[in-house]
Amino acid sequence: MSDEVSHLRADARENRDRVLQAARDLFGSHGLGVTMRDVARHAGVGPATLYRRFPTRQDLIDAAFDDELELCRSIVLDGAGEPDAWQGLRSVVEQVVELNARNQGFVDALVAEGHTSDRLVRHRAELLHALASMTVRAKASGELRPDFVVDDLLLVLLAARGLRGDDPGERLVAARRFAALALGAFRASGANERLPEPARVVGAALRGQV
Amino acid sequence: MSDEVSHLRADARENRDRVLQAARDLFGSHGLGVTMRDVARHAGVGPATLYRRFPTRQDLIDAAFDDELELCRSIVLDGAGEPDAWQGLRSVVEQVVELNARNQGFVDALVAEGHTSDRLVRHRAELLHALASMTVRAKASGELRPDFVVDDLLLVLLAARGLRGDDPGERLVAARRFAALALGAFRASGANERLPEPARVVGAALRGQV
Repeated sequence: MSDEVSHLRADARENRDRVLQAARDLFGSHGLGVTMRDVARHAGVGPATLYRRFPTRQDLIDAAFDDELELCRSIVLDGAGEPDAWQGLRSVVEQVVELNARNQGFVDALVAEGHTSDRLVRHRAELLHALASMTVRAKASGELRPDFVVDDLLLVLLAARGLRGDDPGERLVAARRFAALALGAFRASGANERLPEPARVVGAALRGQV
Repeated sequence: MSDEVSHLRADARENRDRVLQAARDLFGSHGLGVTMRDVARHAGVGPATLYRRFPTRQDLIDAAFDDELELCRSIVLDGAGEPDAWQGLRSVVEQVVELNARNQGFVDALVAEGHTSDRLVRHRAELLHALASMTVRAKASGELRPDFVVDDLLLVLLAARGLRGDDPGERLVAARRFAALALGAFRASGANERLPEPARVVGAALRGQV
């Protein structure tokens, strides 16, 4: 490979990295409705460069959250494989909510409707089946409340999107507290989940009064 | 009042209504980051007309969600006034989550940081004090878990923002189910909350399997 070709390739890779980082930033803070034009501007590349690499917004979304989708798949399949189904459910809730706090926009990408890729559709069907069978086992063990449905798990993951924020540390604390509350809600027995550190939502003036 | 003046006033009122409706639509679906220019375009009025009525975006946010902020105030003060503090907490969670489902963007307006109006700041302080004293009473009655903090209530209200959707009916079902789960999480005793109808999040193909 000539120096020139190698240089061009390095340039192209750098452009691609810049585009993906811009897409993650914008999708994370403004949701998936961000336009391709905005992503190009934010990345400092021309629209033509962006469209050459990612012909549709869905291609860009898939590429931007590719690592998270793979990680999510491992989390769910590992959880579903746990012999103790309640521990499996706990690990899924905790880790997926935390993954979304670290990578805002990932749950949006996971549940996006419309022009989703075939790969994402297969991916979701596989995960839903794994969650469904984990749910059946967790109910049978008596630890999951009998009126739980898989939609409740998705409801909690969707709700976790509402815990947006600019500070990654605070987002993580909020996500952990929220996941523990959700597990407490799902649990059949009266044993409340032990809660981690509370999120700091109320202003300092009121803190410590309750 | 001459006919001409009356006509002008009717025009102005109509413009104001159109602007507020456009603001509610856009804030609800895209969050409070929507630009003044977008609101003007969506309402079909010139930017000058918009700025004459609402000099800052905060003025527009306050006006767009004025009814909801008043309603929220009644909900919280009524709940805090309940002799049974747990019933008060239940009524606050259920009604505020439902209010947000009916008027997406309202919780964003309530918790907005930055250039919030003095009125909103006073409003929030009043509501937080009412919630705090209700919390103390609900813990004393033994119905609210002892490790609950007021931030948890706000965490749930923030999370409810994640339950966005285009269908108002589905949003409401999701909001009610979510509120019931949250109350189950907050409750000290082992008695699970009775859950309303599940939200339909999972696609039809998987429904009924779990």
